Amino acid sequence: MASLYVALLHYPMRNREGEIVATSVTPIDVHDIARTARTYGAARYFVVTPVPTQRAIVWRIRGFWTEGERIREKSRRGEAIEYMVAAEDLEETLALIEEGEGRAPFLVATSARPSNKTVVSYDDLAARLRSDGPPVYILFGTGWGMADELIDACDAILPPIMPDAAFNHLSVRAATAITLDRVAGDRQVTG
Amino acid sequence: MASLYVALLHYPMRNREGEIVATSVTPIDVHDIARTARTYGAARYFVVTPVPTQRAIVWRIRGFWTEGERIREKSRRGEAIEYMVAAEDLEETLALIEEGEGRAPFLVATSARPSNKTVVSYDDLAARLRSDGPPVYILFGTGWGMADELIDACDAILPPIMPDAAFNHLSVRAATAITLDRVAGDRQVTG
Repeated sequence: MASLYVALLHYPMRNREGEIVATSVTPIDVHDIARTARTYGAARYFVVTPVPTQRAIVWRIRGFWTEGERIREKSRRGEAIEYMVAAEDLEETLALIEEGEGRAPFLVATSARPSNKTVVSYDDLAARLRSDGPPVYILFGTGWGMADELIDACDAILPPIMPDAAFNHLSVRAATAITLDRVAGDRQVTG
Repeated sequence: MASLYVALLHYPMRNREGEIVATSVTPIDVHDIARTARTYGAARYFVVTPVPTQRAIVWRIRGFWTEGERIREKSRRGEAIEYMVAAEDLEETLALIEEGEGRAPFLVATSARPSNKTVVSYDDLAARLRSDGPPVYILFGTGWGMADELIDACDAILPPIMPDAAFNHLSVRAATAITLDRVAGDRQVTG
């Protein structure tokens, strides 16, 4: 079974005017996506931001739930959050994955908008995850979506989730959950 | 096509000690689930709490995004939130649905835990939503899950989402997204 990696990226993103910006870390994204990623057996959940103080916030949230008082509470949140790692940029996370896996991952972009990028279907990505092929690394954006240069750097992109819906503005927390359920929902993750 | 209704319930819920409590409304649940429900074509998203001041908070969030300044911004959030209604209890929402639809809905509970309740599979519920049968009304809980009496009052329960996962503690925001994608993801919602 191929390993699954997930990242939430905060740069380079578009803002509502289409400008390239670094978005702020949202603590609920750290929590929700950590829980979703762990449920679907992700090996790591990377929260990626170039801003050092934002990475410090991410590590502090992690520490609160994995160390000290909280480990004595009846909460299993720390079990999910301990799989979360703050990183400076995509390159750092790719180096960590290659170091651990011995090969580069199949890098997959996501977007709510149609794209000219090579598409990998949800079923094909699910088949990759059931195979013994290279790890699969799925990137999720924030703000008004990933910069084109970031999508271009990926091997493929997943189709928008509900392209024909009259309203199609899912939160990244919902989009992550739906995407992982579609591609990893039939893996038995008991380890 | 049968109508789809969604509720987030804050009473009667269990707390971590198993006691029956009213949980607090979480604004991010209002937003995220409104966006998910609208994407999957729900006719209404009910936020249900017996606490009047909590309902006032829900209405205030709704008003902020659907009226006044915010309608002039480049945000489509109000389009989702205007489908959201605060209600006092399950009975009030059932009366609203019956009034609008002319018949009672098929009432479906959800839980992260296995249950003795009659199970309706995701595929069977999807088939109901594609049919011209009665509306489907799916309830989501908060805190440590719905009280047994609430589950007993439903016609059926959906199976837990990832019952065999080593970690299975999804946020209600993630669980709602996954559930609606499984049961309503193949409906063309363009209206």
